[in-house]
Amino acid sequence: MTRTYAIAAGILAVAIAGGVLHFTDAEPVVTFAVTGAALGGVAWMIGIATESVGARFGPAVTGALQSTLGNLPELFIVLFALSAGEVVVAQFSILGSLFANALLVLGLAIAAGSLRRADGTMTFGARLPNDTATLLLLAVFLISILGLSDQVGDRASEHQVAISVAGALCLLVVYAAWLVSYLRSDRRSEQALVEPSHTMLPFGAAVAMLAVAGVLAALLSDWFVDALDPAVEALGISKAFTGLVIVAIAGNAVENVVAVSLAWKGHDDLAISVVKNSVSQIACFLFPVLVIASLAFEHRLTFVIEPVYLGALALTAISLWQITGDGRAVLFEGLALVSLYVVLATLVWFE
Amino acid sequence: MTRTYAIAAGILAVAIAGGVLHFTDAEPVVTFAVTGAALGGVAWMIGIATESVGARFGPAVTGALQSTLGNLPELFIVLFALSAGEVVVAQFSILGSLFANALLVLGLAIAAGSLRRADGTMTFGARLPNDTATLLLLAVFLISILGLSDQVGDRASEHQVAISVAGALCLLVVYAAWLVSYLRSDRRSEQALVEPSHTMLPFGAAVAMLAVAGVLAALLSDWFVDALDPAVEALGISKAFTGLVIVAIAGNAVENVVAVSLAWKGHDDLAISVVKNSVSQIACFLFPVLVIASLAFEHRLTFVIEPVYLGALALTAISLWQITGDGRAVLFEGLALVSLYVVLATLVWFE
Amino acid sequence: MTRTYAIAAGILAVAIAGGVLHFTDAEPVVTFAVTGAALGGVAWMIGIATESVGARFGPAVTGALQSTLGNLPELFIVLFALSAGEVVVAQFSILGSLFANALLVLGLAIAAGSLRRADGTMTFGARLPNDTATLLLLAVFLISILGLSDQVGDRASEHQVAISVAGALCLLVVYAAWLVSYLRSDRRSEQALVEPSHTMLPFGAAVAMLAVAGVLAALLSDWFVDALDPAVEALGISKAFTGLVIVAIAGNAVENVVAVSLAWKGHDDLAISVVKNSVSQIACFLFPVLVIASLAFEHRLTFVIEPVYLGALALTAISLWQITGDGRAVLFEGLALVSLYVVLATLVWFE
Repeated sequence: MTRTYAIAAGILAVAIAGGVLHFTDAEPVVTFAVTGAALGGVAWMIGIATESVGARFGPAVTGALQSTLGNLPELFIVLFALSAGEVVVAQFSILGSLFANALLVLGLAIAAGSLRRADGTMTFGARLPNDTATLLLLAVFLISILGLSDQVGDRASEHQVAISVAGALCLLVVYAAWLVSYLRSDRRSEQALVEPSHTMLPFGAAVAMLAVAGVLAALLSDWFVDALDPAVEALGISKAFTGLVIVAIAGNAVENVVAVSLAWKGHDDLAISVVKNSVSQIACFLFPVLVIASLAFEHRLTFVIEPVYLGALALTAISLWQITGDGRAVLFEGLALVSLYVVLATLVWFE
Repeated sequence: MTRTYAIAAGILAVAIAGGVLHFTDAEPVVTFAVTGAALGGVAWMIGIATESVGARFGPAVTGALQSTLGNLPELFIVLFALSAGEVVVAQFSILGSLFANALLVLGLAIAAGSLRRADGTMTFGARLPNDTATLLLLAVFLISILGLSDQVGDRASEHQVAISVAGALCLLVVYAAWLVSYLRSDRRSEQALVEPSHTMLPFGAAVAMLAVAGVLAALLSDWFVDALDPAVEALGISKAFTGLVIVAIAGNAVENVVAVSLAWKGHDDLAISVVKNSVSQIACFLFPVLVIASLAFEHRLTFVIEPVYLGALALTAISLWQITGDGRAVLFEGLALVSLYVVLATLVWFE
Repeated sequence: MTRTYAIAAGILAVAIAGGVLHFTDAEPVVTFAVTGAALGGVAWMIGIATESVGARFGPAVTGALQSTLGNLPELFIVLFALSAGEVVVAQFSILGSLFANALLVLGLAIAAGSLRRADGTMTFGARLPNDTATLLLLAVFLISILGLSDQVGDRASEHQVAISVAGALCLLVVYAAWLVSYLRSDRRSEQALVEPSHTMLPFGAAVAMLAVAGVLAALLSDWFVDALDPAVEALGISKAFTGLVIVAIAGNAVENVVAVSLAWKGHDDLAISVVKNSVSQIACFLFPVLVIASLAFEHRLTFVIEPVYLGALALTAISLWQITGDGRAVLFEGLALVSLYVVLATLVWFE
């Protein structure tokens, strides 16, 4: 437990350093790197704290808390990006989170998991992967028909915002219906039995850490987005690459490490659960919430994306289902998912 | 049985009212509504009559009769729409029937079915959903390559009609091969054992009702299409919305009610069977037959549709397979399908 | 064995005739037909020879040899087409091989196999079809995002060659990982027990035949490509049709006959294995190897294809998975696959 507090103190120090860099107009690239690292730490703090808080209420509440709070840093980044008019970065970091989780992290987790099995095959419950595929296909469907309608200059395109909001509400209803049934099922509780590998914080300390982490997430996101524009220019990277790769990997760093290490330790079901929940949550909770929240801003976030990302998203949903839908995965399938991410990143690099 | 005749008499009265409205040049909106309602009634009459006729020959013939006659009103609507030069309405009402059955009706049936199960899970044979997915994918494949070829102005686009006819013949051959194997399998007969919940008509009465319903379907479709143009204009609705939503829901009203009520009563397999047969029949029988039949008209019906509907169709086929291919479905999956329909209808509303 | 040598001698005679026609500037259509037929024979020689050589090392090596050498004639055709600047023919003959194997040959094999079963159902291991679907989806994903990016004139399109090479390397790594796990699995050896239906050649004779066949493949491909342009013009066929249909069927003639006859004889697993291995090898080995090899030529081969073939490829991958992923197939599914090929060929015919 002392170790947990020590790490939290370290993260706080990095966050403060980020603030100092921000207010002293330091080199943007440095501010960008430091605040980005601190955001990763904050995501870890939220993970620890929600788990400890949840322990008091049982696994269902833990799941719900993690689902709603776990993506807090990402939520703030996108909100600040939107308020700064960085619509490209906002949209690309959501898409990037989807691709990073569904392709890179899942691929690495499968590779790690299958390499450690004697028969080279990772096995897990097939229900969650199939549910995630359903949710992801729903989101892809919505995004596709909006994107395709925009593509050909339909009259409906003028009503992108209205249709996006209607779609967002549909996604939230379906996600809520899924979450209720998921939390009720016993699967969740079985997973929780395996979970408490690291020490739990006392309830009060956990709530306090949650509060601190929330404030930090908000501040750091602001500074991070502020440094992003000049930093990207100094580094000569495109905004698309920044959003789709750098922000996406930084924002999901903790889930990534957790999922891969769980797979390596043989907790196949738990590893798959972390990645899959993350994917469906971004597609069917975070994205629609941000679309609705963006109504308060000058720059609106819609589900309309370029055809190349639309195609990539559709094929990601289908590949995800194809590879994990049978409840087993082997090395080459993990490598295939990682390859898809590498090719996508290469494409965006040249964008 | 007396009740059946009473309902049939009521439908006849509404149909006659529709005729009076048509020939007295009444308000088009009223004629449109009355003839539309009467067409729904005629679909019910055909359903009752084919079942009663089929009872004499056994379940296989009943299935074949229902497959070929059940969509008679829809067939007439599209033919009259084509002869009136309303190609948009014709094509959109076929597409709309597909979407209404595959998304709205199936979604509602799953929602109804899963809510009534203690464990919230509807279960059914996985064979028919997979067969339907195969047939729908075949139709989507054909439509996609034609649509995509049209999109980029290939030389082949000039030969749309020829390729559409070749594709239509392929679809019909595959559908026939599927129907033969489906009718031969014992599944059908098991379903028939559950089916005769409502009273059967005597053979003679059933044949007479079939003849009357056929004539009514032809007349009503003519009047319906005739009133459509001014009615739509008066209501300020687009033709796309009329075809894709209003005509589609009206034309499939009976199947819809039957499927949802069967699911509610716990006849999972039968409910799924009604929807799935309807979907594959529209895609692989009604659509190709109409494409071939349209050769006799000035305005040809082809498989070439706009990319947004093409994408929606492809994703509908994949979602259908993903959700029902495992022989089980839960509430959120039903809601997901309904959501897809809502988003699509919203899009077309603004079109 | 004498029969094998006799057939080989016959093929040699046809190849020599092809050479004579080539050097005497004979009617191009005749040269085209004769060299095309000889190439089919050379593919058969390579098949026999690799199997006989492999028998010395066991089934795993046989599989690896067949995988790497079996597509030798196709490899040469594409290389000579590229060096002659016939990029369209080169790319279309790779795509055509994919479509011919995945749709036409698989469809015919399923039709043959299911017709001979008493219950009309062909059954086979579900692992290989699913692995092939994974590999094919990976290739489709790569091709799609490149094609879509090219479509909209992204800046990344200028870097097509770089991204194609990155993608090619990814495909090769994943294919290698799959091949290793596939060769290790016992499945292969079980299949080998069924295989040696025709007589094996002695080791020395097999190596000699392999050498002769390799040289013939190179020479014939050169003559074949040389005659292609004038022959196609004389026949009034488009280059797309030549590549996608004629070269594709000629180049895979042997696999085709083998797969269909195996299915007819009831060796369901083996028939599926021949087709599936062929498909994944073309998509994840031959295509990337040729993309990389083309760096040495003036005309580069990339993964960028027109949207209509991209859509067809994506739907082929999905249909393949949908139909064979459950380890069983019936007549109408085989006909559906053949239909897809017929529609595609019709489209290209008018191109």
